Amino acid sequence: MAERTLSGIGVTPLSGVGKVVWYRPDADLPEPPAPEDVDADAELARFDEARSDAEDELQTERARTAERVGEEEAAVFDAHVQFLNDPQITDGVTDAIEGGLPAEHAVQETFTGFVEQFESMGGRMGERADDLRDIRDRLVRVISDSERVDLSSLPKGSVVVAERLTPSDTAQLDPKRVAGFVTVTGGRTSHAAIFARSLALPAIVGVGEELESVEDGTEVVVDGDAGNLVVNPGDDTKAAAAAEADVHVRSGPVETADGVGIEVAANVGTLADLEPAVDRGGDGIGLFRSEFLFLDRESPPDEDEQFEAYVDALESFEHGRVVVRTLDIGGDKPVPYLDLPEEENPFLGERGIRRSLGPDASLFETQIRALLRAAGSTDGTRLSVMLPLVTTLEELHEARERFESVASDLAEEGLTHEMPEFGIMIETPAAAFMADRFAPHVDFFSIGTNDLAQYVMAAERGNERVSELGDYRQPAVLHAIDATVSAADGHDCWVGMCGEMAGDPDLTELLVGLGLDELSMSAVTVPHVKAAVTETDTAEAEALAAKVLAADTKDEVTNLLTTDQ
Amino acid sequence: MAERTLSGIGVTPLSGVGKVVWYRPDADLPEPPAPEDVDADAELARFDEARSDAEDELQTERARTAERVGEEEAAVFDAHVQFLNDPQITDGVTDAIEGGLPAEHAVQETFTGFVEQFESMGGRMGERADDLRDIRDRLVRVISDSERVDLSSLPKGSVVVAERLTPSDTAQLDPKRVAGFVTVTGGRTSHAAIFARSLALPAIVGVGEELESVEDGTEVVVDGDAGNLVVNPGDDTKAAAAAEADVHVRSGPVETADGVGIEVAANVGTLADLEPAVDRGGDGIGLFRSEFLFLDRESPPDEDEQFEAYVDALESFEHGRVVVRTLDIGGDKPVPYLDLPEEENPFLGERGIRRSLGPDASLFETQIRALLRAAGSTDGTRLSVMLPLVTTLEELHEARERFESVASDLAEEGLTHEMPEFGIMIETPAAAFMADRFAPHVDFFSIGTNDLAQYVMAAERGNERVSELGDYRQPAVLHAIDATVSAADGHDCWVGMCGEMAGDPDLTELLVGLGLDELSMSAVTVPHVKAAVTETDTAEAEALAAKVLAADTKDEVTNLLTTDQ
Repeated sequence: MAERTLSGIGVTPLSGVGKVVWYRPDADLPEPPAPEDVDADAELARFDEARSDAEDELQTERARTAERVGEEEAAVFDAHVQFLNDPQITDGVTDAIEGGLPAEHAVQETFTGFVEQFESMGGRMGERADDLRDIRDRLVRVISDSERVDLSSLPKGSVVVAERLTPSDTAQLDPKRVAGFVTVTGGRTSHAAIFARSLALPAIVGVGEELESVEDGTEVVVDGDAGNLVVNPGDDTKAAAAAEADVHVRSGPVETADGVGIEVAANVGTLADLEPAVDRGGDGIGLFRSEFLFLDRESPPDEDEQFEAYVDALESFEHGRVVVRTLDIGGDKPVPYLDLPEEENPFLGERGIRRSLGPDASLFETQIRALLRAAGSTDGTRLSVMLPLVTTLEELHEARERFESVASDLAEEGLTHEMPEFGIMIETPAAAFMADRFAPHVDFFSIGTNDLAQYVMAAERGNERVSELGDYRQPAVLHAIDATVSAADGHDCWVGMCGEMAGDPDLTELLVGLGLDELSMSAVTVPHVKAAVTETDTAEAEALAAKVLAADTKDEVTNLLTTDQ
Repeated sequence: MAERTLSGIGVTPLSGVGKVVWYRPDADLPEPPAPEDVDADAELARFDEARSDAEDELQTERARTAERVGEEEAAVFDAHVQFLNDPQITDGVTDAIEGGLPAEHAVQETFTGFVEQFESMGGRMGERADDLRDIRDRLVRVISDSERVDLSSLPKGSVVVAERLTPSDTAQLDPKRVAGFVTVTGGRTSHAAIFARSLALPAIVGVGEELESVEDGTEVVVDGDAGNLVVNPGDDTKAAAAAEADVHVRSGPVETADGVGIEVAANVGTLADLEPAVDRGGDGIGLFRSEFLFLDRESPPDEDEQFEAYVDALESFEHGRVVVRTLDIGGDKPVPYLDLPEEENPFLGERGIRRSLGPDASLFETQIRALLRAAGSTDGTRLSVMLPLVTTLEELHEARERFESVASDLAEEGLTHEMPEFGIMIETPAAAFMADRFAPHVDFFSIGTNDLAQYVMAAERGNERVSELGDYRQPAVLHAIDATVSAADGHDCWVGMCGEMAGDPDLTELLVGLGLDELSMSAVTVPHVKAAVTETDTAEAEALAAKVLAADTKDEVTNLLTTDQ
């Protein structure tokens, strides 16, 4: 068979070789028997039993996901349990059974009705449709006791191929056995994509219907960097993929070919990310998303619990630095114990530092106490703190006053503490425009390219209709980054980057050329970016940056980046 | 009685003198009779009759508002009619009557339940609470045939004072008889505030509970500029207010004291705005919000209807220029015939030029045809066209290609047409960052400060929790404006401004100093801004601008603007 290539969206810069295992959870049900042949009581009992079994499964998978990926992702399963017990839905199923359908058909019909209803609503409601579809398929499978591919015990070297993978599905994948996965649907921000990055799995999503032509058992190469699925790969292709997969992990600091040191750190969004951060050779943590300590629980973590989490992070690294971002929560994430407003545009609402200086002031004080104590507890690794969503100098000054006031409280109480390095995220256009005013007052900037691109381009990254516009290769975004780095020049203020852009090895040369001192990313791409740093010559990188900044369009930028590499 | 001053939020820079008339629509109902004394059938009939009468009233007021203020504002009344006929609500009232309440009490109780439910939801749902309260009070009044102040026939020189004024209330105010209004609640973007600006009424909102201390019949001065309500004003205060009220309308072009011409134009958001735009001395129209032609109807206006609307606007001015902004519609405004997506952050979604180049392409083509034909139909006043929400050069080029393609179609069809002046709104940070790239390709920029401030500061102006942050006096916003004007320098590209900031006479000197060529605003403030222009010396203005740009905080900016005036 000749080698051929299908293309999709690569979501991890990793390659894998393996044999296709098709995963089809929603196989068609057989025709139902005539209503008079259905024993409604028996079917109701089957349905109840299946609900109980499904709930047990969900709890198991919830726990596994929390451990492997993180609390935020695990919370999806809570939504499933809610749907499982939603009276509107269960009454619908009961009615359908009493109308003469077997349990699996009643579930199929009732849930599909709700799925279509949610889908027609679009937006956030549309996303619930996926959850409903997921729980529907689970129930049908449990009821009909149907055989389907068991994702948790696939042969080693399997490449899972599916229409879509739900959170329930991905939670079962064992990264030690699976060589990668490929899906017909999905985008860069889908659950499956996030999961692939967390577990460092080669993965491609959004390949489209053409994927159906690849049969079970076919040998494939999953190139999650280029987004290419190579079917029936030749020996050269396989060898190249194997070489690619065998990326060299560098555990020490790296410098460019001409000797400029660039710090390459990992982003941490759950305590489970600490180990990969070290294993993949991170110099430290460039973004510790402290909000994960606060999500998906009934009350906030107290000072000691936070202190221990920060110390855990510090102790994972002997040297280097751990940059903790203070609580970044807003109207788009539900937190039961916070009075989060319903906002028409949550991304333009009360988020980040705005809440810490406002309604969440007492949470903020507790967090500062834990941070200052953690900073005082370490000799090797340094603790740094940065504030999210800063737009005005007043916010910076006010936050610093709170740190100083807490420090003097701790001193009075005789508790060991230390003032950490103090910085701000540059993730709003305001911060970029005012970077020259901020620079004298901080130790560092960390450019959050995801939010920055979103606000500069007025295009939400999660909104498929405009997500192309919100790309970090847009010239306007690059100019905002350049303005930030230039503003820091001449001040005692280093500049890092912790958005998705920092983890794209195709952009490393450009970022070095723009003058970034530190890059922080998902642990999975740390080796790739470190490799890219060592291959970079700063003079050439600066010349590339100048050319890129002169470009007028994203296409011109992309061309320059492709030609030069 | 000694003179005293209460302060609130001034919403029009106008002053008025008059006597207080308290307006209290929601006076308490008497205790209801015992249930057994209530004749449910008679009460149901009263309720039905009241609903029908209320609907008639609403239709009358809808028509009046459409004529006086505009279609967009008038649409509020459609929502009221919907609530009036909402089966969930009417069933609730019916149940309450059958439970033994008289009609007015049943309405009061049922609606108040829904009001509280909506209020607890916050956000957009919270706004519906005001509508429900409005319709509740109307029904109670109609049912109980109660006397209340008739807003449409107040004595001349009345200053209406109220807890709040609903759209139904403001629609009844006769600007020839009312000297102004003052409310306890409300903000700069409330319906009442918009109405006051449209009708050039002195008005103050958000005075707070202290307003209750001002009694019926008291003489007051409403200073809608400073936001001060002067109670028992002395003769000097009254004389000053009268002088202030008697603003000089200049109908020709104006220049600064040292002879620099500044175009002062009016914003037009409905055809009814044309007359005030001329009457208040506008040099032309700096922002013709063409979407009002598309809102609140079942199908889009055809080419001829649009053509006539644009020609009407052009013919309102003998000279000068009419700047039409092409369709700016997105997920935050309902338009029945467009497939508008439900978006989590509509302000970061598919809006403005994004829709015109995407799903609304055929609407856009029709609009371009009407615009090119209108541009060709005029000798005196020029037609200019600008594109909303531009973030990339591709969008500009693609839009221009569509104009050129339509021009060649019209040429083939032998229809008179002309290419208009071609410009873009600068209302996203991307456009400000890239202004130097846009400048060679356009005839003008028009800075939309409302959206620009919102995106630069990542703070939605309609969200009370963050609206202070989104102020156009924020240094970051001023830097974005400065970057835009500087980028146009040296190109054949004039720079205008059409946001709320342009209409603030306290900022005119600063804007002249920053280098703006044109300012466009609500018609009401045109005379004030023209006066401010004539008093400005450009050298002093530039010195002021330099000082303001050196400021670090909004407070410093505000101080500089106050000290220097």
